[in-house]
Amino acid sequence: MADLSRFAVNQMTTRSFTLRQAVEAYARHGIGGIGVWTQYLEDMTGAEAARLIRDAGLFVPCLCTTAWVNLRDPSALAAALDENRRRIDLAAEIGAACLVVVPGGLATGEKDLPAARARVGDALRALLPQAEAAGIKLGLEPLHPMYAAERSCLSTFAQCLALVEELGPGSGLVPDLYHCWWDPDFPAGLRQAGPDKILTFHLCDWLTPTRDVYQDRGMVGDGVIDIAFYRGLLDEIGFDGPFEIEIFSKLDWWLRDPEEVTRISVARCAPFVGPRIAQAAGL
Amino acid sequence: MADLSRFAVNQMTTRSFTLRQAVEAYARHGIGGIGVWTQYLEDMTGAEAARLIRDAGLFVPCLCTTAWVNLRDPSALAAALDENRRRIDLAAEIGAACLVVVPGGLATGEKDLPAARARVGDALRALLPQAEAAGIKLGLEPLHPMYAAERSCLSTFAQCLALVEELGPGSGLVPDLYHCWWDPDFPAGLRQAGPDKILTFHLCDWLTPTRDVYQDRGMVGDGVIDIAFYRGLLDEIGFDGPFEIEIFSKLDWWLRDPEEVTRISVARCAPFVGPRIAQAAGL
Repeated sequence: MADLSRFAVNQMTTRSFTLRQAVEAYARHGIGGIGVWTQYLEDMTGAEAARLIRDAGLFVPCLCTTAWVNLRDPSALAAALDENRRRIDLAAEIGAACLVVVPGGLATGEKDLPAARARVGDALRALLPQAEAAGIKLGLEPLHPMYAAERSCLSTFAQCLALVEELGPGSGLVPDLYHCWWDPDFPAGLRQAGPDKILTFHLCDWLTPTRDVYQDRGMVGDGVIDIAFYRGLLDEIGFDGPFEIEIFSKLDWWLRDPEEVTRISVARCAPFVGPRIAQAAGL
Repeated sequence: MADLSRFAVNQMTTRSFTLRQAVEAYARHGIGGIGVWTQYLEDMTGAEAARLIRDAGLFVPCLCTTAWVNLRDPSALAAALDENRRRIDLAAEIGAACLVVVPGGLATGEKDLPAARARVGDALRALLPQAEAAGIKLGLEPLHPMYAAERSCLSTFAQCLALVEELGPGSGLVPDLYHCWWDPDFPAGLRQAGPDKILTFHLCDWLTPTRDVYQDRGMVGDGVIDIAFYRGLLDEIGFDGPFEIEIFSKLDWWLRDPEEVTRISVARCAPFVGPRIAQAAGL
């Protein structure tokens, strides 16, 4: 049986599982970790979730996600920052390594993308003390440019790396192949970042055709992304953190039995998520 | 009436017009130019199309597009290069300033994006002598990263600018706001390129939500792109070439009467396409 100690499944991949069901299924399949989303914590306390996950022996690469902070209204922004401070504490409570930052795109009616990006920097600087106090890193995830207007104005790895270099060790990067695979500068960016700034590495695939802008992401192996290349590069730079599958798929995988999705996720990812560099280099 | 001497409509915007209908309508609306697509030339010779366009007093910023060259099979590639040499000559015959390069994404079954990009460079080098002989520039258009797998592996302005700097004056850039607006490096890239390498500047808008990956582009003014900012930047660097509206919209604009689309295109673009820098600076 494959060593899945570095492998995590992000809950969104098995969307219809409750947290309890996901934890049970992932552990039973020998999966090492679970990427958690806040909405699955609504019917239990952080302490209860932490116990459930810890008792199953799973690690938590991340809690997803921040509430959007890309707001121009000062009172709405203050409320969003407060909500994010609560989520930072929740991440700490469940033993997550980071809180994934998805800050929103443009504000309503806004066309000034550089201003939106500057506001995101301000918001992250405002959240940093709480994150540092809680021992939770702010995990900046570059989102695909097709989400720049509505979900995240953090669009490239280089842009996020520059922010992380400014914010310091209370922050890090959450690269996702789905969002970054097209970027001619992505490989060099990973090398420049080095292993310590990469908090968890998301696996996904790009389907041709892509039938939906938001939720038609592909199961690992079903698309065009050269995942073996990236595993090799990450080994080369000495990355030893988590590999985490995350799939948004309203047209396919979310319609299937999540037990089947878990099984297939393991089978598809096993060649790419083993613990040893030598093993990966032999791919 | 607005001075539309620098303004062109790309035929794809009024998709159901024949070339003859488009030329007549654009000229009647005082539009300066027409961006032509090869499929509209199928029922006439290049000489006939040239006469039709010239008699209406329109300029031709571009012929769209190259046949895809991102092919691994040598004989298929040779045939595609021959077809593109024919299109280069056709572009010269109708008086176009450039042939827009859309080279394809990955080859069938391919996952090696850097190799695909290298092949595109090779193909352009192979076409350059014919383009130079015909006085036609190869117009490299960065396409949105969401098209990297299937339509064009030329995904960023910086990537295209590097290629143009290597290929020299037989090539140039066709920036399109729809494809580049999200790119944190786009403004600096335009400055670095300078006015002479920009062959024609495409106007479009990004809708929220975007309902279709390929063909839900927005009419100028209906989306989130800061078009006035880019007009100001282009004035600042001394660009005095064409502004060309190009909209792919199977969900809206292609369903409307193309006469109405022409009228609205003029009304929406007029504030951004005037000839004088002072006028634009006052926006």
